[in-house]
Amino acid sequence: MKPNDLPSPWTLARRAARMNPSVIREILKVTERPGIISFAGGLPSPKTFPVSEFAAACAHVLEQEGPSALQYAASEGFAPLREKVAASLPWPVDPSQVLITTGSQQGLDLVAKVLLDPGSRVLVETPTYLGALQAFAPMEPDAVGVRSDDEGVLPDDLQAKAAGARFLYLLPNFQNPTGRTMSESRRAAVAELATRLHLPIVEDNPYGELWFDQPPPAPMSARNPAGCIYLGSFSKVLAPGLRLGFLVAPPALYPKLLQAKQAADLHSPSFNQRMAARVLEGDFLERHLPRIRALYRSQRDAMLAALEREMKGLDVQWNAPQGGMFLWVRLPRGLSALDLLPRAVQANVAFVPGAAFYAGEGADAQALRTLRLSFVTATVEQIDTGIAALADAIRAMGARP
Amino acid sequence: MKPNDLPSPWTLARRAARMNPSVIREILKVTERPGIISFAGGLPSPKTFPVSEFAAACAHVLEQEGPSALQYAASEGFAPLREKVAASLPWPVDPSQVLITTGSQQGLDLVAKVLLDPGSRVLVETPTYLGALQAFAPMEPDAVGVRSDDEGVLPDDLQAKAAGARFLYLLPNFQNPTGRTMSESRRAAVAELATRLHLPIVEDNPYGELWFDQPPPAPMSARNPAGCIYLGSFSKVLAPGLRLGFLVAPPALYPKLLQAKQAADLHSPSFNQRMAARVLEGDFLERHLPRIRALYRSQRDAMLAALEREMKGLDVQWNAPQGGMFLWVRLPRGLSALDLLPRAVQANVAFVPGAAFYAGEGADAQALRTLRLSFVTATVEQIDTGIAALADAIRAMGARP
Repeated sequence: MKPNDLPSPWTLARRAARMNPSVIREILKVTERPGIISFAGGLPSPKTFPVSEFAAACAHVLEQEGPSALQYAASEGFAPLREKVAASLPWPVDPSQVLITTGSQQGLDLVAKVLLDPGSRVLVETPTYLGALQAFAPMEPDAVGVRSDDEGVLPDDLQAKAAGARFLYLLPNFQNPTGRTMSESRRAAVAELATRLHLPIVEDNPYGELWFDQPPPAPMSARNPAGCIYLGSFSKVLAPGLRLGFLVAPPALYPKLLQAKQAADLHSPSFNQRMAARVLEGDFLERHLPRIRALYRSQRDAMLAALEREMKGLDVQWNAPQGGMFLWVRLPRGLSALDLLPRAVQANVAFVPGAAFYAGEGADAQALRTLRLSFVTATVEQIDTGIAALADAIRAMGARP
Repeated sequence: MKPNDLPSPWTLARRAARMNPSVIREILKVTERPGIISFAGGLPSPKTFPVSEFAAACAHVLEQEGPSALQYAASEGFAPLREKVAASLPWPVDPSQVLITTGSQQGLDLVAKVLLDPGSRVLVETPTYLGALQAFAPMEPDAVGVRSDDEGVLPDDLQAKAAGARFLYLLPNFQNPTGRTMSESRRAAVAELATRLHLPIVEDNPYGELWFDQPPPAPMSARNPAGCIYLGSFSKVLAPGLRLGFLVAPPALYPKLLQAKQAADLHSPSFNQRMAARVLEGDFLERHLPRIRALYRSQRDAMLAALEREMKGLDVQWNAPQGGMFLWVRLPRGLSALDLLPRAVQANVAFVPGAAFYAGEGADAQALRTLRLSFVTATVEQIDTGIAALADAIRAMGARP
């Protein structure tokens, strides 16, 4: 059946051929099997959800502001939440530049609608966040991967590919999928280059607050606010189930993004926005974030220790992310993470093959060796058991010591 | 400044030229002025929001299901809510055909993404729901209005315009903006015609439960489920601030709509879905809906009585909707609702000019005489005062008795 072959009377739009099931979501379905240890999902640890604060906020919002919290509301978002966001950012942002979105995923959808024509060039990191590729795909752009190293996109390759690009999509902090962080010098070089080339940047920063030892360098948006759209999320600092994120746009672009937002879902849930604003009052994050950071750091340490212990003698490499939720692994030459996955699942452990995160022409032989491990959802005991099982599966595939 | 003229380095997508501020939202801003009586917004009466039930549901969900309610969740939606929706519909629907959306507005966005190419013909009623036109616009279709009378679209004109159309968008019950309802005979004729012409139907039914004396005739989807996508909403039966709606799609179409949903916002808020499912348990709606119906019927009656009283001697016409939230008014020949609006606002009363709701070539002289009045947000006292002020404004424009 061709992509557009549907039973009468339906005809699919051309763009629908670009929409495909998320590889990750399909894997996640398999990993919902009881007993499986999953390093696959990007699920924040439920231990970090401020449940009692939410309960108090719910009660307050319904008692004090019920009719407004449950009514239709402005597409821009709840004013106190927009003000809180503007005040939290490390460069001058007016609340009128803040648009509350239904998760930062919606920010990607709105940006794509407003900036991408069919065939428009959009530059992404190699590898990049799969959800961004999926959000851009319906607008039928030409997504081009810029070669990247441990510090982010390579300026030479960026310059070579920038002509005519509508924007460069970057996730500079504790990137999904690699866990890498753009260094200060790379940020400075890319910012200078983007300004010189008149290349807009869409900066996605869902993980920036989840640093372990020190905050990451200043955002790209702080270096050139007029040339950047910034996307943020409450999913990792409060909870994903509220579906709240935001974007910050230059004033000239804001009206079109707002109109796209109106057409997409009128506004994000007013109830959730008021709950979040209530929880965030005062210095909540200053108390809450250190707890998340400490938890995730200990989980990362546990995974690094388990890898060190279990992968001994196998030619497996990995990085040591300075924050966030993910760690990036490279299998021995000749092994494919796609081949490893079913064997791992048989041994009750799951991950996401790195190939899922490559744009355009797709993954090369190097990329096929990569995989993403989340260290935040599983417990330390599960990390120990799971990494041992993963090492066994790799060993069974014939990696020589 | 041309639509695509933005300061460097930004370039807008071609479709952005089609995105324009909602006329209604702009009017609503004016009408937020204190002291104004607004018949403009489509805001459900806050008196109908089940605040205490929500408070109990919040407490329960956070206490019993906190970690799941606050976590990422399946794009399809919360299973018990999907089952509740499927069971509530008057034709056989499997829960696997139900997709929970972020308001039914998102259903329109997803349908447009999956079914509309640039230039695709999409048929709409005359007049039609403005939010649908806005949701379709980014996909750059050719929206064509089918001539309509008090019973809905006219089969002759539908047949004349159907060739090549991707779908016909219908709001058969207590339509926004006119308040009209498609008669049983018109539904039967349009269903027969659509089947014969292989014309898909997207049926939007946010107001269907808000009937006053008797339920409306069976949905179009019940007559030909394989040829229809059905959109529903919890905004009018629970509360809009949760941003929860749903769509029901034929199994062959569902996967593409699901993929568009994933890309748009991953999933609708899990917390809100569980709250709604909890509130809807048992026979809540059977107790709650009669209260909404009685309230809105009394408000409609108050507005009809006020019109009868105040418009006497003016050549003003209006309909008597059998449910929903809106009533449709026609001004005397030669008067324009667009000209009336500023005078009305000066007299502290607001409405939406009907011209906003016409697709394609736009409103003709007849359409310019129309306006939409919501009878559900204002109190009965406000209705009396507001309709009197509106009559004065019309009289002042020179309508002869």
